[in-house]
Amino acid sequence: MDIASVAEVRRPECIGRHVCIRGWIRSRRDSKGGFSFLEVNDGSCFGNIQVIADGQLPNYESEVKQLTAGCSVSVEGTVKESGGKGQATEIAATAIVVHGWADPEGYPLQKKQHSFEKLREWAHLRPRTNTFGAMARVRNCITRSIHQFFQEQGFLYVHTPIITASDCEGAGAMFKVTTFDLDRIPKQADSVDYSQDFFDRPAYLTVSGQLNAEIFACALGKVYTFGPTFRAENSNTSRHLSEFWMIEPEMAFFDLNDNMDLAESFLKRIFRDALTQCPDDMQFFQERIDDTAISTLQKVVDSDFVRISYTEALEVMDRSRRTFEFPITWGSDLQSEHERFLTEEEFKAPVIVYDYPRSIKPFYMRVNDDERTVRAMDVLVPKVGEIIGGSQREERLEVLETRMAEQHLDPKGYWWYLDLRRFGTVPHSGFGLGLERVVQFVSGMANIRDVIPFPRAPGLAEF
Amino acid sequence: MDIASVAEVRRPECIGRHVCIRGWIRSRRDSKGGFSFLEVNDGSCFGNIQVIADGQLPNYESEVKQLTAGCSVSVEGTVKESGGKGQATEIAATAIVVHGWADPEGYPLQKKQHSFEKLREWAHLRPRTNTFGAMARVRNCITRSIHQFFQEQGFLYVHTPIITASDCEGAGAMFKVTTFDLDRIPKQADSVDYSQDFFDRPAYLTVSGQLNAEIFACALGKVYTFGPTFRAENSNTSRHLSEFWMIEPEMAFFDLNDNMDLAESFLKRIFRDALTQCPDDMQFFQERIDDTAISTLQKVVDSDFVRISYTEALEVMDRSRRTFEFPITWGSDLQSEHERFLTEEEFKAPVIVYDYPRSIKPFYMRVNDDERTVRAMDVLVPKVGEIIGGSQREERLEVLETRMAEQHLDPKGYWWYLDLRRFGTVPHSGFGLGLERVVQFVSGMANIRDVIPFPRAPGLAEF
Repeated sequence: MDIASVAEVRRPECIGRHVCIRGWIRSRRDSKGGFSFLEVNDGSCFGNIQVIADGQLPNYESEVKQLTAGCSVSVEGTVKESGGKGQATEIAATAIVVHGWADPEGYPLQKKQHSFEKLREWAHLRPRTNTFGAMARVRNCITRSIHQFFQEQGFLYVHTPIITASDCEGAGAMFKVTTFDLDRIPKQADSVDYSQDFFDRPAYLTVSGQLNAEIFACALGKVYTFGPTFRAENSNTSRHLSEFWMIEPEMAFFDLNDNMDLAESFLKRIFRDALTQCPDDMQFFQERIDDTAISTLQKVVDSDFVRISYTEALEVMDRSRRTFEFPITWGSDLQSEHERFLTEEEFKAPVIVYDYPRSIKPFYMRVNDDERTVRAMDVLVPKVGEIIGGSQREERLEVLETRMAEQHLDPKGYWWYLDLRRFGTVPHSGFGLGLERVVQFVSGMANIRDVIPFPRAPGLAEF
Repeated sequence: MDIASVAEVRRPECIGRHVCIRGWIRSRRDSKGGFSFLEVNDGSCFGNIQVIADGQLPNYESEVKQLTAGCSVSVEGTVKESGGKGQATEIAATAIVVHGWADPEGYPLQKKQHSFEKLREWAHLRPRTNTFGAMARVRNCITRSIHQFFQEQGFLYVHTPIITASDCEGAGAMFKVTTFDLDRIPKQADSVDYSQDFFDRPAYLTVSGQLNAEIFACALGKVYTFGPTFRAENSNTSRHLSEFWMIEPEMAFFDLNDNMDLAESFLKRIFRDALTQCPDDMQFFQERIDDTAISTLQKVVDSDFVRISYTEALEVMDRSRRTFEFPITWGSDLQSEHERFLTEEEFKAPVIVYDYPRSIKPFYMRVNDDERTVRAMDVLVPKVGEIIGGSQREERLEVLETRMAEQHLDPKGYWWYLDLRRFGTVPHSGFGLGLERVVQFVSGMANIRDVIPFPRAPGLAEF
C-alpha cells in the first residue's frame, strides 16, 4: 500500500494507483444512489481530494455517514479520473478508517465563515481553514526562497543572539529578560542589584541582529541573519507585532549600489517563487483577500526598480503639486503617504530612495562627502510603502565616533563594534526585511496578526 | 574586472583569468628577490589564496611591505598555476588597495595561538581565526541541510512563538519577559499586578516549540520548527547554553517506527552533507580538534541504527557485567555512562532506545498497552550520548487527561492542546534536536560555547 499525499493523488499521473491517503474531512455529501462524496484535505496543497465512499463499505452506515467537517480519516482506494469539475482525479475508496471525530455541536469550524478576528481566538484551529492553510504554505515558500537565494550566492547563515545586554541601539523599546522573582527584586543602595540577576547585568530581547552580523561580515564576507526580533512598544495596530522574524544580510566590500542591486534581485526572487511555487494558494488570495494580489507581485517581478535620492524625491513631490496631509520639507522623514505617492502614483513601480538626511538616520550609516546625507536606502513598494531599509555602514573609525557623539551614544557600550573599524576595516553594507511585511504584501492580508502562526502584541501571548 | 571569491580562484579552472579578490591578510612573507607573498582569506572557504606582490607595484614599499595579519585589501591580478605546495593557483597582483590596517601592537589576533577561552572574550574577532571560520561554514552547512531535508520531503517550516505565557511544560527553568520597571513593580494586594505588564500576564521565553508545532501537524500534516529556545538553569558547564537553536519536526499519522526512520535518515543526511560539502573544514577539525571527527561521522552515515527497547537495554547492560558508577534499575533514567556504553562499547553504532518507563517521561508521550511504558525514543551516538529525543504523542483525550492528573498539571492551561484531541485527533509523532549538540558532534569541539556565534550562559551576555 502506497501512502500518498493529496497533492500527489490530485495529479493525473496518479490514475490507476492503489493508495492510502490520510487527512481531515472538509465536507460530506450523500448521494441518492446510496454512496457519499467526501472532500479530504491533508495540508499538502490547497485543494482537496474527492473520495467516493460506496454504500458497500462495512462501516458505511455506522461511521462514514456520520463524518463531519474536522474528522480525521485514512482512506484506501484507487485513484480514478474524475467526472467532476475542477479536479482531475478522485479516489474510489475500498476502506475508510476514522481516527478522530469532531462533534459538530462543539467543533468551532463549521461551514459558516468566521471573521479573522474570531479565528485569532482559535489560533490552534485556524490552520485548518483554507486561508490559514494557504498562509502556512506561502510563508514556508517565502522562507525557503530566502534561504535558497542567499545560499546560492555563498552567504553564510549566522545566528545572532536573542538575549542581549546592549540596550543602546535606539531602534525601539525593549523587553527585559530576568530570572528575578518579581515579588522580591534584590536591591543595593535603593536600586536594582543586577549583579544578582542571571546575566549579572540588565538583559533584553534583541531588536536587530545587524551589529552582530557586521562582526561576521567583517570576517567572512557575506552573511545573513534570519531570526526573531522584538519591539516592546505599546502599539495595538494592524501593522505591528511585538515578536516578528527579520532577515538581515550583511556584505563586506559592498557599497550602496551593490546593496540596492542585491535588494532588488532578492525581492524579485521571493515574489517569483511565491507565484510559481504556490499558484493555487495565490489564486485563493487573489479571489478572496485582495484582487490585485497576483498582478501586484507580477509587476514587481517585471519592473526595473526606480532609484532616486531623497533630495530628488522631494523635488518630484514638489513638482507634482500634490497636497499631502503632512507636507514634507528637507530634513524630515518620509511618511507613508509620501512613500505610497512615489511608488503608486508617480513611478508606478518599486522605488529605492537613497541618501537621506544625516540627522534622521542612525549613527552607523556612512556619511556622504556632502556631510549632510548618509548612504541609507529604503525600498518602497505599492500598498505597503517601505519594505526594506538598509545602508552602507560607516567604516571610518573617526567618523563613526563623531556620529556616536552627535547622537549621545556612549562608545564604551560599542567597544567591539568600534574594534571592527580599528582592525582591518572594510566598506560594507546590509539591509533588513521583516518577514511578516513580506507575507502581508504577498497575500494581501490586512492584519499582520494573520500572517504569523501565533501573534504577540500588547495583551496577547496566548497559545 | 571580475570580482571573484577566494574559493573560486583556488580552482585550476580559474587559471588565466584577470580578477579582483577582496579579503584579509593572514600573513606576509618578503622574498629576497624584492617581492612579497601575501596569504589572503575571505571566508568563502578554509584555504587562503597566495598573492605575489611584485616590488614594482607603486605602493610596494609604502603599503604592501607594511601589511600585517588582519589588514583588509583588494587585489587585482591574474590567476596563475602555483609552483608552491598545497595550492593549485596563485595570483600575480597588478594592483593592491589597502582598505584597513590592523596595528600589530593592538590587534589581538597575532600569530600566537590563543586558547578558546581567551577567544570567547574576543567573540567579535574570533570568526577571523581558522577554527571559527570553519565553525561558521560547517554550522551554515548543517543548517542548510536541515532545511533542505525537510523541504524535500514536503514539510512546512513553522515559526512557533518565542514569548509564551505557558510556563507549564516542566521542561526546565524559564526566563521571565517583562516591560516592568524593575525598580517599581506594580503590586496589588501584595503580589505582582501582572495586569499592568505588557502581556497582561506573566510571560516567559519558550523552552520548546513542540506543543505549538502539534497544532500545525494536526492541521497540515508534516511540519518542523527551527528556532531559538531557552533554559534559565544556572548551569555553568561545557554542555549547556542558556540560549540555543532547536529543530523540532512533528508529523501527523506517524507512529514511533516512522519517527525512528525519519530520525535516522535525517541524521545521516546532515552528517553526509557536512563530510561532502565542507571537506577542508572537516579535515581541519580532524587534524586540530578531534582526530576521530571524520571517521565518527562516516561510521554513523554507514551504520544501521540499532533499535532496542529500554527494557532490553537494561538486560544488555545487566548481561555485560559492566560496573557503572550509577547502577541502573528498571524505572530510572539512563545516565550518560549507560548511553555511551550502549553506543560506544556494546553496539559500536548509533542506538535508538524506545519504550521508556511512563513515570520518567512527560505527559504528552503515548502510553503503551502494557500501561507501564510510553512510546518515547532517544537516539544515542558515540561521544555525546543522546542527540535526539522524541516520542509518539498521546492522541487519546482521556488517556492524556489521566496523564496530566498524574503529573499534577492543570488542564486549564492546556485547553487548546486538549482541543486537538477533541476534534479530529490523529496519531502523530515528533522529535527534538539541539543544533549546537549536532555541531559539537560534527566538529569534535569540547565546549558548546565554541559552536554558537555568541554564547549565552550565566553571567555571559556580552556582544
